[in-house]
Amino acid sequence: MERDDVTPIGIAVIGAGYWGPNLVRNAQATPGLNLRYLCDLDVERARRVLGEYSTVAVSGSLDDVLADPEVHAVAIATPAATHLPVAMAALEAGKHVLVEKPLAANFADGRKLVDAAESRGLTLMLDHTFCYTPAVSHLRELVRGGELGEIQYIDSVRINLGLVQPDVDVLWDLAPHDLSIFEAILPDDVRPVEVSAHGSDPIGAGHACVAHLTMRLSNGSITHVHVNWLSPTKIRTMVIGGSARTVVWDDLNPTQRLSVYDRGVDREREHKIISYRTGDMVAPALPEREALRGVMAEFAASITEGRPPLTDGRAGLRVLAILEAASESLANGGAFVPVQQVDGPTSSGGGTS
Amino acid sequence: MERDDVTPIGIAVIGAGYWGPNLVRNAQATPGLNLRYLCDLDVERARRVLGEYSTVAVSGSLDDVLADPEVHAVAIATPAATHLPVAMAALEAGKHVLVEKPLAANFADGRKLVDAAESRGLTLMLDHTFCYTPAVSHLRELVRGGELGEIQYIDSVRINLGLVQPDVDVLWDLAPHDLSIFEAILPDDVRPVEVSAHGSDPIGAGHACVAHLTMRLSNGSITHVHVNWLSPTKIRTMVIGGSARTVVWDDLNPTQRLSVYDRGVDREREHKIISYRTGDMVAPALPEREALRGVMAEFAASITEGRPPLTDGRAGLRVLAILEAASESLANGGAFVPVQQVDGPTSSGGGTS
Amino acid sequence: MERDDVTPIGIAVIGAGYWGPNLVRNAQATPGLNLRYLCDLDVERARRVLGEYSTVAVSGSLDDVLADPEVHAVAIATPAATHLPVAMAALEAGKHVLVEKPLAANFADGRKLVDAAESRGLTLMLDHTFCYTPAVSHLRELVRGGELGEIQYIDSVRINLGLVQPDVDVLWDLAPHDLSIFEAILPDDVRPVEVSAHGSDPIGAGHACVAHLTMRLSNGSITHVHVNWLSPTKIRTMVIGGSARTVVWDDLNPTQRLSVYDRGVDREREHKIISYRTGDMVAPALPEREALRGVMAEFAASITEGRPPLTDGRAGLRVLAILEAASESLANGGAFVPVQQVDGPTSSGGGTS
Amino acid sequence: MERDDVTPIGIAVIGAGYWGPNLVRNAQATPGLNLRYLCDLDVERARRVLGEYSTVAVSGSLDDVLADPEVHAVAIATPAATHLPVAMAALEAGKHVLVEKPLAANFADGRKLVDAAESRGLTLMLDHTFCYTPAVSHLRELVRGGELGEIQYIDSVRINLGLVQPDVDVLWDLAPHDLSIFEAILPDDVRPVEVSAHGSDPIGAGHACVAHLTMRLSNGSITHVHVNWLSPTKIRTMVIGGSARTVVWDDLNPTQRLSVYDRGVDREREHKIISYRTGDMVAPALPEREALRGVMAEFAASITEGRPPLTDGRAGLRVLAILEAASESLANGGAFVPVQQVDGPTSSGGGTS
Repeated sequence: MERDDVTPIGIAVIGAGYWGPNLVRNAQATPGLNLRYLCDLDVERARRVLGEYSTVAVSGSLDDVLADPEVHAVAIATPAATHLPVAMAALEAGKHVLVEKPLAANFADGRKLVDAAESRGLTLMLDHTFCYTPAVSHLRELVRGGELGEIQYIDSVRINLGLVQPDVDVLWDLAPHDLSIFEAILPDDVRPVEVSAHGSDPIGAGHACVAHLTMRLSNGSITHVHVNWLSPTKIRTMVIGGSARTVVWDDLNPTQRLSVYDRGVDREREHKIISYRTGDMVAPALPEREALRGVMAEFAASITEGRPPLTDGRAGLRVLAILEAASESLANGGAFVPVQQVDGPTSSGGGTS
Repeated sequence: MERDDVTPIGIAVIGAGYWGPNLVRNAQATPGLNLRYLCDLDVERARRVLGEYSTVAVSGSLDDVLADPEVHAVAIATPAATHLPVAMAALEAGKHVLVEKPLAANFADGRKLVDAAESRGLTLMLDHTFCYTPAVSHLRELVRGGELGEIQYIDSVRINLGLVQPDVDVLWDLAPHDLSIFEAILPDDVRPVEVSAHGSDPIGAGHACVAHLTMRLSNGSITHVHVNWLSPTKIRTMVIGGSARTVVWDDLNPTQRLSVYDRGVDREREHKIISYRTGDMVAPALPEREALRGVMAEFAASITEGRPPLTDGRAGLRVLAILEAASESLANGGAFVPVQQVDGPTSSGGGTS
Repeated sequence: MERDDVTPIGIAVIGAGYWGPNLVRNAQATPGLNLRYLCDLDVERARRVLGEYSTVAVSGSLDDVLADPEVHAVAIATPAATHLPVAMAALEAGKHVLVEKPLAANFADGRKLVDAAESRGLTLMLDHTFCYTPAVSHLRELVRGGELGEIQYIDSVRINLGLVQPDVDVLWDLAPHDLSIFEAILPDDVRPVEVSAHGSDPIGAGHACVAHLTMRLSNGSITHVHVNWLSPTKIRTMVIGGSARTVVWDDLNPTQRLSVYDRGVDREREHKIISYRTGDMVAPALPEREALRGVMAEFAASITEGRPPLTDGRAGLRVLAILEAASESLANGGAFVPVQQVDGPTSSGGGTS
Repeated sequence: MERDDVTPIGIAVIGAGYWGPNLVRNAQATPGLNLRYLCDLDVERARRVLGEYSTVAVSGSLDDVLADPEVHAVAIATPAATHLPVAMAALEAGKHVLVEKPLAANFADGRKLVDAAESRGLTLMLDHTFCYTPAVSHLRELVRGGELGEIQYIDSVRINLGLVQPDVDVLWDLAPHDLSIFEAILPDDVRPVEVSAHGSDPIGAGHACVAHLTMRLSNGSITHVHVNWLSPTKIRTMVIGGSARTVVWDDLNPTQRLSVYDRGVDREREHKIISYRTGDMVAPALPEREALRGVMAEFAASITEGRPPLTDGRAGLRVLAILEAASESLANGGAFVPVQQVDGPTSSGGGTS
């Protein structure tokens, strides 16, 4: 399992379901990675994903794949409930791990994975895909670079006619995207403190299909997330209100994803005078690139450079902490529930821009 | 003060501030109404509103106006805190009353006005302007006529760079629009039951400038309202999800305000099979007309016909009941607060289509 | 008819049809103007326009109005075919004239009006309303100030489900808006040289209901205008491509009417190397104001200051010259027809910003 | 080279440039096709396109590929100037041919290819990709099925910041898309009769970078196409005006590509009464599928079934006829130039819906 820097990193993709094909395609296209297996219990499905023209091996046995010393890393796209055993087996076999969100089915399981990776000095990375889009990279610079001023509120809407998941509610299915984006862009000293969640299940799915999550940040501002599987139209917008600028991100508007407004309300504290800024709007030019390509590149770089990736296990753990608190709130009529804190620096990785 | 049906209804507008000029203009244009006064403590302001070419009288004295037997009705556009004394004086003088939203500064005051009007057989009408738009008239037909099926959720967003009010928070300023619309379109057996509200005041205005209101309806579904004075962009959308159809109302898209989607998720209860409808979308043609013209016409008609208007005092009271519950929830960390019920039929009036 | 600078300018509006009410409203609201008459052959219509609450006089006789020494100026909103006699009578009576577009039914008639006004030292102004919008004022600064670089092309689309005019085709009805905007924003040394027009009449209206006008400017670039009465959707966009910046004007997007793009294709001439700029976009903040208010203010100012208005008779004449050439081209299968030149400076007036 | 119906059709892709990779990917995914070669003079480029995980052969020799009896068909994505020799060589070797638009560099060359294919009974198909989108399939049904009534006008806009081609002008680069769509959707008895074209080259590219094409159809209506490489924004819209309905196609709006309006102007011929329809708008649900997949499926089906494909050589020839006429008009100041007619039925193929 020794590997020098010039040898490509042997990688296996575990899971040939919804997301697996994307991992396969991007692993193949990433310099420094060498895709050796697509592994799925359903071997035929794996074969269909690869098609008739591929030299990549198919395997139905995770054990076999993990036993191959040419495999240095795995990318896991199996159901969340299986993340703990699959990722733990990989870590115990000494493999670096890239795992789909959420990190695990609950905070305690996630904690085990983080500890296992850290104690072995292995990379544990979350596929928080959105964090590798040019839009979020730019947002991160705007927010952490101070251009927006102090964060006043965040409002995110992520609704569409979505697949009603059998095993998780809409919060666990969709909100991880928003929560991981907050994790990536917020300054280190602005952390989620407590969470309130409301939800409803109008179609009798057995869990919430529409949900609203309200989160109080450590600077007192409020962040709101609306997730919904039942909306006939697709909306993917996030407004980040700051004391100096406000940015609107519309991810479905490819020609103007980000709009940075010099518009807002100012209040001169001493004399309580309220004034309005109505300046220009700037839509920054963003490069076009596939986010998952960036995920793979960061995974490869973090392994090669022996550093935590931008979206490391602790980032995944922080998202889990919020999801657990949200579920508790949901069960308790929307009462605020404190968010368990995860120590350690966030977002220390580079590689986003 | 006797008036037969052919004599126009003499009317006075009280208040020459932000909204008063619109009342003046529309009162003048409404057949059956005869505008006799614009009344404001600031006589010069009233004069400026009327301009140099008007025959309408200006008055600085409410008493004088109410003493004029040619004045049969008043339209009140003064600050909410003054609604009780001004409207009560008018009712006690035997005048019909049209009043800006909210009906009064609190539920108890509103109750007094409703009682005073009902005991005297006078019209007490709320200027819930949006309820007289062609869009809301059509929504009312869609929802109450059953075309949407059972209501599953409602989500309303009303955000823009708004005037930060000195005396009321953003909930009391903006949410009455949404609440009065719900009041107008929901079937009689679907009523708001309890309310949770979150808010924040990031600019130090002294009360919430950003707020989220979550309301549980009697059929179990959830209604959410997001109001915000600090957003650089203006959004006015409402999604009404139904079991048969879902309608999206975008009030800022004049060429396609309503979009009725035959898209959604169905679940066959017995076998728990989930299926997806992905049918066509229909954008109904809507007439163009100014809503406030409809308000004035309904006010005149309800007086002439001796019937309650579509947006009568009880409708205004129901909105107040929700606002009070929301304020209590806001002060209590977002806990659900029951909504005081107002008996009597809702929306019995006609005149919307 | 003597008038000192402090006495308001007495004005009469001639024509109580489609546009007249707007002139009445804005004349009343403009400091320095004193509206004395609304004049229309149909006195009842004029009365209805003024409503029951107005002190403005109604007249059915143009002669009477022009004979009143308190009337110093007239604003004419009668059919184009009547502009020559009505405006000429006013000028001969020593009145300043504001006239709806187009200046007259043909170039020769327009020439007579310009000569009559200039020989008497009277203001002759065109109500080219769009030229007084904040958007066009800003465009004028961008283009004439050089920020766009050299103008490379202009493309304007003005289509909607419009009133099919009985007496003029769609070019004469809609294109004057575009042509007067070009007139206002283009630098003095970039003039329309020749025009080609195609049109069709698919509903049998007797003249073109859909038309395309292609205009070659003196700097070699091409300007295209698409006008259409039959489109189910309304589009009002203009793209002005420059060598340094390109601006897109979407008049139906009130929150982002102008978008200035630092995007384009550059070609280094010597080595024929083509490169692409893909910089940011800026949407300048624009004030909200009614354009017709600006028209009235400029009319009053040009009279008071004794200077030509921004949209003077010669500007109207230049528009007529293009329309005549376009009609000739239309009748000749789209062949290019030279545009008759009107000497004298353009757009020397101020007052736009 | 014999092939029974169950053996997959052996296919080679010729050209590994801009479009070749898309052909490779879709050929691999199409049942009934067996991709055997990617052929390019630049063997390294071909290898890069296939990547490190492919079993497909690379070849630098067209002759070798055509000599392989397992190759029954070729898909050609080389520059237009090479279409004649490459496609002719393939046809002479008895291979079926799918070729990128335009069919050839001029009408005469295209004619030779059509004759060569027809005389040998081989499939010659154009990759008019847009014709295989769900939107165009639906448009074809709407137009040819009569739902729009009589076609009154068509207006197409295809502008963006595009690659300035070194060898062809913007008409030859972009307009083939529009022209092939017209070819696919118009009824057999509505044919392009004459064409006028205007263009300009403001950056000194050596040929038109902005162009307007006006086409008179045999039913008297006008079709207009605006193509532009210099626009900072991307627009892909087509309006098809009919006497009964009008459809607006906005290809960049994935959630509402087609909008069918029951809005328009009617004229009762005898009494010359003009009336306006202002009915609802319907946005039909369209499936999501990749158009190029449909191209490949139609190519395979036309070979297997021995029938002409929807976009056969004659369709390609008709597009060439218009492009040649447009170029002649462009060189002659925009004068109308007749379009050479190509006999034979159009669009007889199935497979679009």
